[in-house]
Amino acid sequence: MSEPHRVVIIGGGFGGLYAAKRLRGAPVDVTLVDRRNFHLFQPLLYQVATGALSPGEIASPLRYVLNQGRNIQVLMANVADLDVQERRVILSDGMAGYDTLIVAAGARHHYFGNDHWEDTAPGLKTIEDATEIRRRILLAFEAAEREADPARRRAWLTFVIVGGGPTGVELAGAIGEIANDTLRYDFHSINPAEANILLLESSGRVLGAYTDKLSDAAEKSLIRLGVRVRKALVIHLDDEGVTAKTDSGEIRIAARTVLWAAGVAASPLGAVLRDRARASLDRVGRVVVEPDCTIPGHPEIFVIGDMAHFAHQTGQPLPGVAPVAMQQGRYAADTIVARLKGRTLPAFRYADRGSMATIGRGKAVADVFGLRFDGAPAWLAWLFIHLMYLVEFNNRLVVLFQWAYNYVTRNRGARLITGEARRPEKPGELRLH
Amino acid sequence: MSEPHRVVIIGGGFGGLYAAKRLRGAPVDVTLVDRRNFHLFQPLLYQVATGALSPGEIASPLRYVLNQGRNIQVLMANVADLDVQERRVILSDGMAGYDTLIVAAGARHHYFGNDHWEDTAPGLKTIEDATEIRRRILLAFEAAEREADPARRRAWLTFVIVGGGPTGVELAGAIGEIANDTLRYDFHSINPAEANILLLESSGRVLGAYTDKLSDAAEKSLIRLGVRVRKALVIHLDDEGVTAKTDSGEIRIAARTVLWAAGVAASPLGAVLRDRARASLDRVGRVVVEPDCTIPGHPEIFVIGDMAHFAHQTGQPLPGVAPVAMQQGRYAADTIVARLKGRTLPAFRYADRGSMATIGRGKAVADVFGLRFDGAPAWLAWLFIHLMYLVEFNNRLVVLFQWAYNYVTRNRGARLITGEARRPEKPGELRLH
Repeated sequence: MSEPHRVVIIGGGFGGLYAAKRLRGAPVDVTLVDRRNFHLFQPLLYQVATGALSPGEIASPLRYVLNQGRNIQVLMANVADLDVQERRVILSDGMAGYDTLIVAAGARHHYFGNDHWEDTAPGLKTIEDATEIRRRILLAFEAAEREADPARRRAWLTFVIVGGGPTGVELAGAIGEIANDTLRYDFHSINPAEANILLLESSGRVLGAYTDKLSDAAEKSLIRLGVRVRKALVIHLDDEGVTAKTDSGEIRIAARTVLWAAGVAASPLGAVLRDRARASLDRVGRVVVEPDCTIPGHPEIFVIGDMAHFAHQTGQPLPGVAPVAMQQGRYAADTIVARLKGRTLPAFRYADRGSMATIGRGKAVADVFGLRFDGAPAWLAWLFIHLMYLVEFNNRLVVLFQWAYNYVTRNRGARLITGEARRPEKPGELRLH
Repeated sequence: MSEPHRVVIIGGGFGGLYAAKRLRGAPVDVTLVDRRNFHLFQPLLYQVATGALSPGEIASPLRYVLNQGRNIQVLMANVADLDVQERRVILSDGMAGYDTLIVAAGARHHYFGNDHWEDTAPGLKTIEDATEIRRRILLAFEAAEREADPARRRAWLTFVIVGGGPTGVELAGAIGEIANDTLRYDFHSINPAEANILLLESSGRVLGAYTDKLSDAAEKSLIRLGVRVRKALVIHLDDEGVTAKTDSGEIRIAARTVLWAAGVAASPLGAVLRDRARASLDRVGRVVVEPDCTIPGHPEIFVIGDMAHFAHQTGQPLPGVAPVAMQQGRYAADTIVARLKGRTLPAFRYADRGSMATIGRGKAVADVFGLRFDGAPAWLAWLFIHLMYLVEFNNRLVVLFQWAYNYVTRNRGARLITGEARRPEKPGELRLH
């Protein structure tokens, strides 16, 4: 009897997790490799960054989620390299041989060549990013409360969010809520509602990928929460603020809290695939894939999710959102099983069920199943869909309860300032991760 | 009209928080100073360390908890020194004048002169300690899964808890549960139930402060969870294990995870009070206080909670537990209000309603209201009392729900390995906090 077909999956995000779940019970041996021991529900990460939810409520241990699959092994390890000739993944402390490889290592923030901005303006990709951003937002109000000088106090109360996509819009809206509602009665020397929340978007339009109607509705909701949207391109960042180019010239904004939601780049594993398997990368490092999500010349290597540049459906690459990754994960799994039976599947097709974003308490904009709507119905749809996709039942109930409680009391209980400062004391001590 | 009487409270633990709450609406101006922005429910910290609860579920923002008191101000700041002549607290970035001072800065771990053990064997006092311990416990199982050498694998699967008081017993019991229940189906190469969990207690008796019957019941519960209790005094600690003195000579235990629950010492503010106000300290740095919880010669300075050595009731100092701190906090507040009316209060008396500890699923030992019991009734009493004292209603419901869910599914959802390693790579890089 031959050994079972070995599938290695790199990454336990939406793509990797859904591929692994789909392969449960299939006649293959699956090894899922991730640096972290948990799956993270990234669409709600901004709620951790703004104190509405706790990290544990949007994360699930990978071993637990996958422990029903006796053919699935979880390996907590760093991938150092790929050996595509010998078909093995080189880990920092070992090796994992494969017959089929699924690369689903996701994306990280991208500073357009200004990587040194990361410490000044953190992005939001990991649990640590979220607690760091939460720490900075809350500490800024604390510092403002203690600051006697009006100009310096103003800088502490100025929050700049760079980038007007869904993450930037949701972060800005949540900070607006914190300033107007959550902290309303908490301070003596300052009025948190006087916070200056600026969303800088180079195109001038928030949610540029949505329809004009929804984009306008989002902007109106933001304005109601005290957020100002400016058409501006950041050209310089430091601990004291932001310099940006606008239509009326360069402006300088004194701000002690700057958050980055402007760009993502694919995992560095993309470059490894370029070097080892002659894959082509696009401008942001994504791997250009075939209609079946594999790379040219290597039908045994799938690249899916945020790492993949899949342009066969509309001519444009599919967006880096969870539903694409989930569907590609299931597709890769199905393709592997079909091949073992000597069959092939038709090309991958993304079933776009729409997209949505929330902007503050009871407000959202949605574009789902061909319907476009905003306000309370969109918000309820948003709640429902996000709860449904939380992997663990436990998390669904806790998050539902926390939301209901936060909604009624206008409170955010997870307002903990924890951890050490990541902002370096001296320029030489950058600690990135 | 004269200025209102100024009360400064140092510390937002049980003592400081209950003093502040009691002064709500009193004719005094209250400033509560804490390094952190939240009150931490320390009795449940071991449940964060063992993945049953999330940090946010046992912490409450101090500003929120106290924002109903318009005469109460919260200051997030470090105390650098005290000027008892001029009656002011010197902060690292400012000053706070007082008419009455309440010092309630708590305690930290104590390594009996071996402070360098802290990085090898962390104690459990802060949220960061708890997530660090959680990280180490979970990473140990991950490392064992990948380790081929049987002796090294055994060292990864060996957990040593030093100290058999309530924290040590609860930690050991929880690790026993993790090994036997939580992780049962999660690994392929190892059987987590083979973990070697050792509780080292120099007296040989766990929960030595309880009655013999309860102490025996606790030990039996621990044994049922696979924990071995040994009479042993730790004399050396390093990254590879523990050396301890036993009745039959020195032993060496190869263990990669060592947790410290053996001793606490009062906050360094005790030494400041000794130097500035001639206070006497006991062996573990606690400030010896008068029957009214003030220090001799300074009726305007109260010292309460874990920092106070109060021996007027039984001849023995009161234990460092939450109920003592709460009652002393209320007493200090009442004394301040009485004095403003020209009255005095009788000496402080601790109303001891008993103590309890849980050991694994559905098990506890209790000694409350003069009744001693163990098993399920003790566990239910333990649940009820701990929920009751959680400061926020929201937290009570979420914790109740998490417990019920964990109980039914035998799962612990908050099993996140987060943060960077605190264990230093090189000996010179100790990062204490």
